[in-house]
Amino acid sequence: MKKRILETCFSPALYEPDHHEGSIVVIIDILRATSSICTAFENGVRAIIPVSDIEDARAYKKKGYLLAAERDGYVLDFADFGNSPFNFSRERVEGKTIVYSTTNGTGIINLASKAGIIAIGSFLNITAISEWIAANDKDVVLFCAGWKNRFNLEDSLCAGALAERLLNTSLYNSICDSTMAALDLWALARPDPPGYLEKAAQRARLRDKGLDDCIGFCMTEDFTKKIPVIKNGVLVDNNSC
Amino acid sequence: MKKRILETCFSPALYEPDHHEGSIVVIIDILRATSSICTAFENGVRAIIPVSDIEDARAYKKKGYLLAAERDGYVLDFADFGNSPFNFSRERVEGKTIVYSTTNGTGIINLASKAGIIAIGSFLNITAISEWIAANDKDVVLFCAGWKNRFNLEDSLCAGALAERLLNTSLYNSICDSTMAALDLWALARPDPPGYLEKAAQRARLRDKGLDDCIGFCMTEDFTKKIPVIKNGVLVDNNSC
Repeated sequence: MKKRILETCFSPALYEPDHHEGSIVVIIDILRATSSICTAFENGVRAIIPVSDIEDARAYKKKGYLLAAERDGYVLDFADFGNSPFNFSRERVEGKTIVYSTTNGTGIINLASKAGIIAIGSFLNITAISEWIAANDKDVVLFCAGWKNRFNLEDSLCAGALAERLLNTSLYNSICDSTMAALDLWALARPDPPGYLEKAAQRARLRDKGLDDCIGFCMTEDFTKKIPVIKNGVLVDNNSC
Repeated sequence: MKKRILETCFSPALYEPDHHEGSIVVIIDILRATSSICTAFENGVRAIIPVSDIEDARAYKKKGYLLAAERDGYVLDFADFGNSPFNFSRERVEGKTIVYSTTNGTGIINLASKAGIIAIGSFLNITAISEWIAANDKDVVLFCAGWKNRFNLEDSLCAGALAERLLNTSLYNSICDSTMAALDLWALARPDPPGYLEKAAQRARLRDKGLDDCIGFCMTEDFTKKIPVIKNGVLVDNNSC
């Protein structure tokens, strides 16, 4: 049986849209966008509209949408809250369609638009998403959001953890050096993922802004079985579409 | 004392020219370009002219220059030899100015043109270049050539080995996740670097083409004390300029 191909991409600047047509692309941005999105779906959000432009976000807010919006860690003054997963509580989001303005999330979604399926991955849904990926007969790309186009440790660890689960199924082949590196970094981090992340640049950035309370939570496996996917530019629960 | 900044860049697609103005940029492409260049200088080459365009390479050849030229591992038919370091023997290169046509080397040199100094690094000159870098009061970027803009393991290991030596001087600060990853990958590989590289994609590519005889050599530390640098677009021995 021909094995499916597993690849890892460490940054939007390294993503090759034409190379991944028809694949499953898993977007990984664990501190904090994809962890927050997984949390919102676990807490019953109906849909999340990702927007890049601040004026678009403001227009949605005027129409009455709940708006999560940050730039570089600071909540925009007209937003309801920022990007911490703790903001996406059941009380706030259940049954609602909310708007999420992200620093680079929409750019990444656009980059991946030729993919067969775009899904949202994090430690919070790692078992569910790995089983769901394996149940789809498609090549897969683990697309790390990075930070301002740079490689980052936290998304690479999550890619490594996901790659390990997928390769253990024997359904996939990977001759991708990025995957090999992610697996090795994850093997080093696994005994104490938050401890390993102490040296990450984003760890220091969040600490400096007092936004680091969620890191332990973002490294928690299997908080949810939800698999958010993009349908027509909007994030929805895979089971609802 | 303000520490110098050490950063690692895993691919030309991740390089930020404006961010590294005035820095020392060390180009690392150990399988096989920068290993071959270091070997050529150890064997007495006077200068190496890097060219990207095949017609430019052909023109130099017609003028009588010795020409090393490959594309994707295959020697161009009008060239004298390809990119293996074993081709750059003393008998062939001593005292000569030769021309080296590389798949992506000249693009990388152009990208780094705003740097203060562009130098050529490999395991073959690792002690010499790390001591020379430390003797220059400048920030430093370890610029991995990668493979077709992708992350690769072999250049990352060499960057990790070099970063380790530089950070051990206590002259540098690095809050760069790529450097942290390179250090960790090098720590894993150090007991047996060629063994670690068995899983690298370039290892398989070179084996498939029968070009893998040089890998052990390319992972050898301190074959030479030469430090090739770019002066006016030409590679010369740092001590000669």
